[in-house]
Amino acid sequence: MFDPTQLELAAAILDRCRARRLRVATAESCTGGLISGCLTAIPGSSAVFDRGFISYSNAAKTALLGVPEDLLVRSGAVDEAVARAMAEGALRTGEADVAVAVTGIAGPGGGTADKPVGLVHLAAARAGADTWHERHVFAGGRQAVRAATVTRALRLLAGRIA
Amino acid sequence: MFDPTQLELAAAILDRCRARRLRVATAESCTGGLISGCLTAIPGSSAVFDRGFISYSNAAKTALLGVPEDLLVRSGAVDEAVARAMAEGALRTGEADVAVAVTGIAGPGGGTADKPVGLVHLAAARAGADTWHERHVFAGGRQAVRAATVTRALRLLAGRIA
Repeated sequence: MFDPTQLELAAAILDRCRARRLRVATAESCTGGLISGCLTAIPGSSAVFDRGFISYSNAAKTALLGVPEDLLVRSGAVDEAVARAMAEGALRTGEADVAVAVTGIAGPGGGTADKPVGLVHLAAARAGADTWHERHVFAGGRQAVRAATVTRALRLLAGRIA
Repeated sequence: MFDPTQLELAAAILDRCRARRLRVATAESCTGGLISGCLTAIPGSSAVFDRGFISYSNAAKTALLGVPEDLLVRSGAVDEAVARAMAEGALRTGEADVAVAVTGIAGPGGGTADKPVGLVHLAAARAGADTWHERHVFAGGRQAVRAATVTRALRLLAGRIA
């Protein structure tokens, strides 16, 4: 289901969080639950993983994570500020110390010249610290874009707790 | 990532929901996001899939889905009434017409004589109708239990909208 690199990253994140007593939350759009699915593939993840939000619709992004409605209207859902707001909202709403968020265009539909299929914004928030952001354009079809996003999100999260 | 049976079930659910203008939500514990991950593997799922809750901790089950705290204390998290409350909570909290929920013991730890590894309670709620429930004890390790739960949850959801 997940590739060895993803599972190794997930296990390393959980080990590090357990040692530092950090709890993790996720906020996912284009990956639809796969980041949390990968983290929870590891036995014992319940000691670290608190909750995940799959905010697929814009209404869900606002209701669950507090992403401002006018930001979504102005910028669209696939945007740096939206990714940051999702990660910070996941921290605020739950009991986690660190949160990772992704919003992107997995395709095959939904791409534009400005925002092509494969465009993904990722953010990692940590309580009392700066939120990190990355922008990627991943190649391939829907499955490849989603899988690449999971791997990248895990790397970003691992970096944020290093 | 997902097997052909799971992807066919997901596609059939989305087709039927699209035709009937039904929106779907998920509430997952032991599967950690994989049910929603499978539904959103299908292109165009955003027209049907509204949001998902990964309520891994008990605190998350109460905060996100309104599962009564005293029920969790009395019955534990892996229980018919908890699965029903999760599915109905996902309906109440979001904009969906139908919701599926799972709570179980994926293992390898956490099993007891009464509640062995592989025990999973599933529920499917539909607005204005009875909530359906199933109890299963799936064989195999953590990955097998989670995969079997995804397939069974998709079948239950497909039945609930038939």
